[in-house]
Amino acid sequence: MSTAGQVIRCRAAVAWESGKPLSIEEVEVAPPQKDEVRIKILFTSLCHTDVYSWDAKGQNPLFPRILGHEAGGIVESVGEGVTDLKPGDHVLPIFTGECKECPHCLSEESNMCDLLRINTDRGEMINDGKSRFSINGKPIYHFLGTSTFSEYTVVHVGQVAKINPEAPLDKVCVLSCGMSTGFGATVNVAKPKKGQSVAIFGLGAVGLAAAEGARVSGASRIIGVDLNPSRFEQAKKFGVTEFVNPKDYNKPVQEAIVEMTGGGVDRSVECTGSIQAMISAFECVHDGWGVAVLVGVPNKDDAFKTHPVNLLNEKTVKGTFFGNYKPRSDIPAVVEKYMNKELELDKFITHTVPFSEINKAFELMLAGEGLRCVIRMDE
Amino acid sequence: MSTAGQVIRCRAAVAWESGKPLSIEEVEVAPPQKDEVRIKILFTSLCHTDVYSWDAKGQNPLFPRILGHEAGGIVESVGEGVTDLKPGDHVLPIFTGECKECPHCLSEESNMCDLLRINTDRGEMINDGKSRFSINGKPIYHFLGTSTFSEYTVVHVGQVAKINPEAPLDKVCVLSCGMSTGFGATVNVAKPKKGQSVAIFGLGAVGLAAAEGARVSGASRIIGVDLNPSRFEQAKKFGVTEFVNPKDYNKPVQEAIVEMTGGGVDRSVECTGSIQAMISAFECVHDGWGVAVLVGVPNKDDAFKTHPVNLLNEKTVKGTFFGNYKPRSDIPAVVEKYMNKELELDKFITHTVPFSEINKAFELMLAGEGLRCVIRMDE
Ligand SMILES: NC(=O)c1ccc[n+]([C@@H]2O[C@H](COP(=O)([O-])OP(=O)(O)OC[C@H]3O[C@@H](n4cnc5c(N)ncnc54)[C@H](O)[C@@H]3O)[C@@H](O)[C@H]2O)c1
Ligand SMILES: NC(=O)c1ccc[n+]([C@@H]2O[C@H](COP(=O)([O-])OP(=O)(O)OC[C@H]3O[C@@H](n4cnc5c(N)ncnc54)[C@H](O)[C@@H]3O)[C@@H](O)[C@H]2O)c1
Ligand SMILES: [Zn+2]
Ligand SMILES: [Zn+2]
Ligand SMILES: [Zn+2]
Ligand SMILES: [Zn+2]
Repeated sequence: MSTAGQVIRCRAAVAWESGKPLSIEEVEVAPPQKDEVRIKILFTSLCHTDVYSWDAKGQNPLFPRILGHEAGGIVESVGEGVTDLKPGDHVLPIFTGECKECPHCLSEESNMCDLLRINTDRGEMINDGKSRFSINGKPIYHFLGTSTFSEYTVVHVGQVAKINPEAPLDKVCVLSCGMSTGFGATVNVAKPKKGQSVAIFGLGAVGLAAAEGARVSGASRIIGVDLNPSRFEQAKKFGVTEFVNPKDYNKPVQEAIVEMTGGGVDRSVECTGSIQAMISAFECVHDGWGVAVLVGVPNKDDAFKTHPVNLLNEKTVKGTFFGNYKPRSDIPAVVEKYMNKELELDKFITHTVPFSEINKAFELMLAGEGLRCVIRMDE
Repeated sequence: MSTAGQVIRCRAAVAWESGKPLSIEEVEVAPPQKDEVRIKILFTSLCHTDVYSWDAKGQNPLFPRILGHEAGGIVESVGEGVTDLKPGDHVLPIFTGECKECPHCLSEESNMCDLLRINTDRGEMINDGKSRFSINGKPIYHFLGTSTFSEYTVVHVGQVAKINPEAPLDKVCVLSCGMSTGFGATVNVAKPKKGQSVAIFGLGAVGLAAAEGARVSGASRIIGVDLNPSRFEQAKKFGVTEFVNPKDYNKPVQEAIVEMTGGGVDRSVECTGSIQAMISAFECVHDGWGVAVLVGVPNKDDAFKTHPVNLLNEKTVKGTFFGNYKPRSDIPAVVEKYMNKELELDKFITHTVPFSEINKAFELMLAGEGLRCVIRMDE
């Protein structure tokens, strides 16, 4: 019996207030409207951005809310006007969209869609400014347009990447955010040439995905930089060849890296969110050709500050968002890279938990343990 | 009768002390040594860098010295080991060199040669640490390895571009520094696509050469930004389509430009040396794809400061030196662009004076009059 056009009752993990454990509730999920898709989520993983918005420090608190944005699922039904997708398609919902019509979507260089660009403050669907989730008729806010901590969710079609149905969703779900962000920052933006040296600042999940990008690009040296030495052991599995802890030097770490490399690294990728690391990542690249790519999300009051001579010496600094991937156009090909064994993902998945134990995933992340914890929705 | 191997006595304009008029003296010019070339200078033009070093404010004063670095001439004789050049070749001496062997010269992306990179503090030839100029046996310092304010000068072969002998040296001499710097900043580094918008900060000679690069690239809008409104009249001849004076706004000029362009310009090129203009030039580019290129030479204590979110929004900032041209490999082709009428140079030459009146060129520049004053050595 088809559920299309019907309200679906299912389980969702609801964040009722900031910093409190999620609670699994029965929610009503309305049918998809114009340009929307209803997706059955099979696997979802936890990313820092979920934790930030749950913590809601320095942000608009928006509760009750269904968090979650790294996930894989299957289309249950589609709303009016949706022609690209049909029930049964395997998909990854993505926290930032691609309308295919705005100047950004039409530009080869940008993925910052005017219509569907990430918006952490929005809690409703853009179509009608309303939520598709409710409990006894009372609306529950959406998160990033994805809200994947629910057995069913409704997502704008511009935020849904249709992927190879043979791809294991319990693995490729991590491409919805962190892994694509780090990998793309290296392969799409820093673009190291074969044999070049790359420094990666921050060896969390995003930084290790950036290191994976450097490995795939044939980098000769991959220098991992982190303040936390416990990150180094794990990073060895990710092709990182050398480790630098800024705390081990009584000079700025960029100077140490310039010395280690006889003038600077060819490329650097910053994946920390620390403004000091952003500046170091820029200043440690080689003059003449060095490129620094910033990925980390800084604090509101941070200032990127450097002597302009560092720029005049033909160094480049640029930022990237979601690894410069356009979610619908580009992510299916990244899934294929995994299928062809060009890109490794399994090593990023250090934990799995059943949906009923989703709060364990939060605990692991808060304790800094592991990289990605995949949550199995059917348990 | 050949002068090769002989000391040549000729006229040179000597700067005896900082800020005092140059005086035309008879000097002795020693023969070129290993890897050196002696050049008969026919035309030289005055650039700000000559005036800075003559003024010597905040710099190592190095006097007596023969200034000058934008010039065209003919090879008189070559030293040991020089095989690329022979007497009679038409050449442009360049203030920064290309050894063709160091990592920078071997990199496709850099022109910052390790051996012959610009050095304003050096007053001797690198071969033996001695000067080739003297007056009654007392050495006179070189400047930038070029010292073109002399009828004959000695230059390292790595700083000599061999050009088409049919090119008029009284015109193409300005490609030795300023015009190539601005033009290259746009066409080699900012690389606007046909139809894109470009903002040029600073409408001096370098900025107008950057505007010429934008015109040649088919930019749809060329927005000239200067604090000095008298620059605007002249700039109209250079394809600048709109003018913005930061003083006319009670908000940062980058905000005004973002409004004028519905989100920011596609490319910007900063040619002022003002740190505030560098920051504005960066912040006025469009998110998603905007590229800002910095050309101006900043003060020692300046700090480039911006909110890192400006970078994360997929904007790029990079600096360039001599328009990213490799002097020997690339400048001959820029001369050809002039010969093919792709690139206009004549409009940059607003004044000419005989060598005997070289101090008039300084006066014009100090008064901010005109763009380039070409000095004819034979008068
Ligand atoms: N731009 C995007 O599209 C996007 C997407 C996802 C995540 N992010 C951002 O990427 C960053 C990394 O994410 P993550 O999940 O890997 O985080 P994480 O917290 O797991 O890892 C960050 C690492 O950086 C290290 N670090 C912190 N300050 C440092 C410093 N000054 N020098 C060296 N190392 C330092 C920490 O010790 C930690 O190991 C975060 O800022 C996150 O918000 C950006
Ligand atoms: N990187 C290189 O290889 C290279 C080579 C030559 C010159 N330069 C540098 O390029 C710059 C320009 O050279 P030029 O000869 O054209 O100089 P210039 O003095 O003739 O022109 C600079 C212009 O910038 C304007 N200006 C100053 N501050 C401004 C601000 N905040 N906003 C807008 N406009 C402002 C001035 O009014 C002036 O018209 C200088 O800094 C020079 O040192 C660099
Ligand atoms: Zn769009
Ligand atoms: Zn995420
Ligand atoms: Zn070199
Ligand atoms: Zn110059």
